[in-house]
Amino acid sequence: MASSDDVVTMRSEWVLNSPEPPSLWRLFSNSLNKSLSHYRHKLSSLRDQPSPKPLLALLSSLFPILHWIPHYSLTKFRNDLLAGLTIASLCIPQSIGYATLAQLDPQYGLYTSVVPPLIYAVMGSSRDIAVGPVAVVSLLLSSMVQKLIDPASDPIGYTKLVLTTTLFAGIFQTTFGLFRLGFLVEFLSHAVIVGFMAGAAIVIGLQQLKGLFGMSHFTTKTDIISVLKAASTSLFQHPWNPRNFFLGSSFLIFIITTRFVAKRKKKLFWLAAISPLVSVIGSTLIVYVTRADKNGVNIVKHVKGGLNPSSINQLDFKSPHITEVAKIGLVVAIVALTEAVAVGRSFASLKGYRIDGNKEMLSIGVTNIIGSFTSCYVATGSFSRTAVNYAAGCETLVSNIVMAVTVMISLQFMTKLLYYTPTSILASIILSALPGLIDISEAYKIWKVDKLDFVALSSAFFGVLFSSVEIALLLAVVISFLKIILISIRPGTEALGRLPGINLFCDVDQYPMAVRPPGTLIVRLKSALLCFANATFVRERIIKWVAQEELDDKGSTTSTVQLVILDISNLVNIDISGIACLEELHQSLVSQGKKLAIASPTWEVIHTLKAANFVSKIDGRVFLTVGEAIGCKLEC
Amino acid sequence: MASSDDVVTMRSEWVLNSPEPPSLWRLFSNSLNKSLSHYRHKLSSLRDQPSPKPLLALLSSLFPILHWIPHYSLTKFRNDLLAGLTIASLCIPQSIGYATLAQLDPQYGLYTSVVPPLIYAVMGSSRDIAVGPVAVVSLLLSSMVQKLIDPASDPIGYTKLVLTTTLFAGIFQTTFGLFRLGFLVEFLSHAVIVGFMAGAAIVIGLQQLKGLFGMSHFTTKTDIISVLKAASTSLFQHPWNPRNFFLGSSFLIFIITTRFVAKRKKKLFWLAAISPLVSVIGSTLIVYVTRADKNGVNIVKHVKGGLNPSSINQLDFKSPHITEVAKIGLVVAIVALTEAVAVGRSFASLKGYRIDGNKEMLSIGVTNIIGSFTSCYVATGSFSRTAVNYAAGCETLVSNIVMAVTVMISLQFMTKLLYYTPTSILASIILSALPGLIDISEAYKIWKVDKLDFVALSSAFFGVLFSSVEIALLLAVVISFLKIILISIRPGTEALGRLPGINLFCDVDQYPMAVRPPGTLIVRLKSALLCFANATFVRERIIKWVAQEELDDKGSTTSTVQLVILDISNLVNIDISGIACLEELHQSLVSQGKKLAIASPTWEVIHTLKAANFVSKIDGRVFLTVGEAIGCKLEC
Repeated sequence: MASSDDVVTMRSEWVLNSPEPPSLWRLFSNSLNKSLSHYRHKLSSLRDQPSPKPLLALLSSLFPILHWIPHYSLTKFRNDLLAGLTIASLCIPQSIGYATLAQLDPQYGLYTSVVPPLIYAVMGSSRDIAVGPVAVVSLLLSSMVQKLIDPASDPIGYTKLVLTTTLFAGIFQTTFGLFRLGFLVEFLSHAVIVGFMAGAAIVIGLQQLKGLFGMSHFTTKTDIISVLKAASTSLFQHPWNPRNFFLGSSFLIFIITTRFVAKRKKKLFWLAAISPLVSVIGSTLIVYVTRADKNGVNIVKHVKGGLNPSSINQLDFKSPHITEVAKIGLVVAIVALTEAVAVGRSFASLKGYRIDGNKEMLSIGVTNIIGSFTSCYVATGSFSRTAVNYAAGCETLVSNIVMAVTVMISLQFMTKLLYYTPTSILASIILSALPGLIDISEAYKIWKVDKLDFVALSSAFFGVLFSSVEIALLLAVVISFLKIILISIRPGTEALGRLPGINLFCDVDQYPMAVRPPGTLIVRLKSALLCFANATFVRERIIKWVAQEELDDKGSTTSTVQLVILDISNLVNIDISGIACLEELHQSLVSQGKKLAIASPTWEVIHTLKAANFVSKIDGRVFLTVGEAIGCKLEC
Repeated sequence: MASSDDVVTMRSEWVLNSPEPPSLWRLFSNSLNKSLSHYRHKLSSLRDQPSPKPLLALLSSLFPILHWIPHYSLTKFRNDLLAGLTIASLCIPQSIGYATLAQLDPQYGLYTSVVPPLIYAVMGSSRDIAVGPVAVVSLLLSSMVQKLIDPASDPIGYTKLVLTTTLFAGIFQTTFGLFRLGFLVEFLSHAVIVGFMAGAAIVIGLQQLKGLFGMSHFTTKTDIISVLKAASTSLFQHPWNPRNFFLGSSFLIFIITTRFVAKRKKKLFWLAAISPLVSVIGSTLIVYVTRADKNGVNIVKHVKGGLNPSSINQLDFKSPHITEVAKIGLVVAIVALTEAVAVGRSFASLKGYRIDGNKEMLSIGVTNIIGSFTSCYVATGSFSRTAVNYAAGCETLVSNIVMAVTVMISLQFMTKLLYYTPTSILASIILSALPGLIDISEAYKIWKVDKLDFVALSSAFFGVLFSSVEIALLLAVVISFLKIILISIRPGTEALGRLPGINLFCDVDQYPMAVRPPGTLIVRLKSALLCFANATFVRERIIKWVAQEELDDKGSTTSTVQLVILDISNLVNIDISGIACLEELHQSLVSQGKKLAIASPTWEVIHTLKAANFVSKIDGRVFLTVGEAIGCKLEC
């Protein structure tokens, strides 16, 4: 018996005499070092190689294309050409539609499908992403920038601000990448993104009512109530031409049908991919032949042709809204990165390669900076076009180059052909892309797995619908972090009992076969922190628990608890209020003739308890396991 | 061996087939139920008793005085009388000083020392608290309300707003008490209070420069830079009379000397307690005799006599600032409660009785509501006077009644005597009370125990000094909660090894004697949550770790890790991103021919993993302990 006691004492000393945990400062400097060493390592590996290799290595680290282009083959090019042409056919109508959604002239969408894919092709590390304008970012830009300048009354000033926002977004993204701040993108949790995308899809869809019905009066607000009000006013009080709706909805049905077919027969995926372009061509021909534009069908009219003009002179840093523009740039930068990284990661994992989040942010950032100089608005990886690119069998980012060249040719020679394209077709094409943003099965999974996550999802969803995009995002991020606080400080406690056949103590509710030892109350704290926010609760609950423990159902005293063992294995941090809580608990127990013992403290916690002299106050009753703590009832 | 395997399998099934944990909704409804059952229990216990006892029981629960007054004795009264007279002598000069600090007429301080102590005496559950105006609340009121109305140009409107704020504060406090929202008071952590009190003491002290030097020009701002600037301007550019400073500082030295003596000889504590009153009387006599007021010594002049007038007509709900006033009321309510509860608890624990935080909030709240009807501003438990009350041997709250009656008599008969009291003496009395608010040894303890807590302390301290009281509090609360988030999601991981002589696996850095088993990497997550904010980090770190594990110092492959065991005993919650992280980790390991096993999941986490089908993805490799998980390397 004595030797077993010795072993317990020895082990208790292991707990108490463990070396000092790394200090906060060391943890911080370590993580800073790691971040710096990334670059140091890169530099030294450059220096070690015989010249002129260093330069080449640096270049190929910045431009992954230098890595894979030497191994590029004709077979690969054939696949990339096919994929590139397929996404180009989807990209041209989508770009025009998204530019309209962003309240810019149609050519800006096409511009954004030329320069960004080219830049990304030489810098990006994904092999599947199709870069260009996307729906959510277009909505975000228009809903936020139009609060500063009205695009209807001052389209030139509005376009300038959008381009300036694009520059800011690019600068923020590049900065995140350079300083390896990838974690900022993680702040939008998966649940928030699912809710936000679904809400944005509905809002974008409602915005398309204007084009689909050819309404002349509409609202610039994005919340569902304003939009529905404006739509019903327009429908019932203003003249609108049913031809727009007829044209738009019949081609919408056509697009949806082709997609349905493509889903059934995977080989026909190209049918779904080119159906938007077919719709554009078909509807344009119909309008041109029947001259339906004279009978009230709204058409795109003039689209400015020619390649991207320089827009350096359009960047407006003297605007009175410049701080607002920077803020919008930040929001847009994060949302665009979130989409790009999510798209990139999911397709990379399908093909079994990895992409570096920080490098990805850097390349999207540079893409947008250069984009803002060449009349492009914020570009990122598009969900729908990346999926088509993947399905079309793309091999490398060359498919992006093919797409950019195709759009370039269209800009140069074919913008005149778009004159008679009905605007309702653009609305149909946007509408047809929206269901992909609404992921009901994922939302159901989140509901099943984590109710609090679903609250964050709902807040993002309803926030977008009923308030505004930026408030929805802010609300959802706040709720996500409130959830973290709530879970960390929830003052949970559980009674432990010994599992049969093993010297292990577990929650008696979780393991009904666990038996609680007589005369001892073993309590495990379930929260990660014992701090100002929950210490009083925990203390009160344990004191009440001890009192209840000694009463039977009729309220008379039956048993006596001699020892309370506090299993603090879950505790990762204790603050000064937490220590005060333990001291008061100890005092309260002593005044009742009971003892307090501590079991399984983590490294930081035992260190803090030692620093606060708590260990000596409870006569060193700190044990490695609950099993060893039990012995101290008999012993001391 | 086979039977041992069976045991492991059985235990693994214990983990997997544990009953469902209580749902979020049930936890919530349980806690609501507990809150309601408090009242239900009270009601039913009232109903069970024979009438007319129910009424009496309800009354004695609301008015604890009914509990103890039947057992009140003459001996107790003698002690209470002595203590009451002692705190009255301290209270009269302090009340006048604090009213000046709150930018109210002196009589309002005296009013606040009459009604609140009387109400608290019948409702409060502490036996030692001395209720009345306090320094920090006075500063808080004046600094916040003067932003709405300038007290110099519209003293009547300012007083009205202060009284309305008092009503709001009382309503908030009562509500907190009724709905048992005691946790709101906990939001100001101990560290924040230490920093805030010290900062407030310095700010209050600087405000006293005006009175001490008899300056005619001063600032209404509270931040240290404005005050020092105003003080130096006043000192060097405007005339001031050194007689004020001479008078004030000599009596300040007298008060400090008596306190020093009292500290040495505990029996002479009354000397320190009455020295402020002695100073007031002495200095008033000096001024009266020498007519120093004609030579530039500033005096109090007229103090309105008579008992508290009703102030119901002064409550101003139609003020354009009413929402601001409500906000100030909320801040003041929380700060006042924090002080009252802290004072009450610390002296209760000295005498070994307990006070109920919720009941305490209720009584302070009612005290302030009634106070606002009777020309009192916000009252709470005073640190300095409670300490004197305790030292003077008070037995019950009767000492508060004695104090109130004494102040009442002074108001009725002695306000005229205050005419010649020099204002510099009031400044000295406030200055002498301030060192008690600065707790350097506690600040040092916090620094030693928890560096992040010290950051919260410093932010409250410097926030008060350089910015404003409310911003300092907000900043400190935000930092306190940021600390919680930071600690909960810090993506820490630790390698585990087997301790010699026991089948237990611990951190190899914490326990250097632990030995890591070959071919197996055992990683414990140190964070409480695996969620959107840290999942990517954790996954990357573990994957990198596995890769490093297989390399020796020279970078060539040496050993092979066949099994990675993830000890998730610290994890209290996992969200959808966390599950995705585990799935990707699993996939990455599978692609390298390695296996992933999970050990010691908590109740909620194993439930979530089951709901997300993760357990089946890793072929049910979930174990009760790390020790049992190790076996699965050989087995499967």
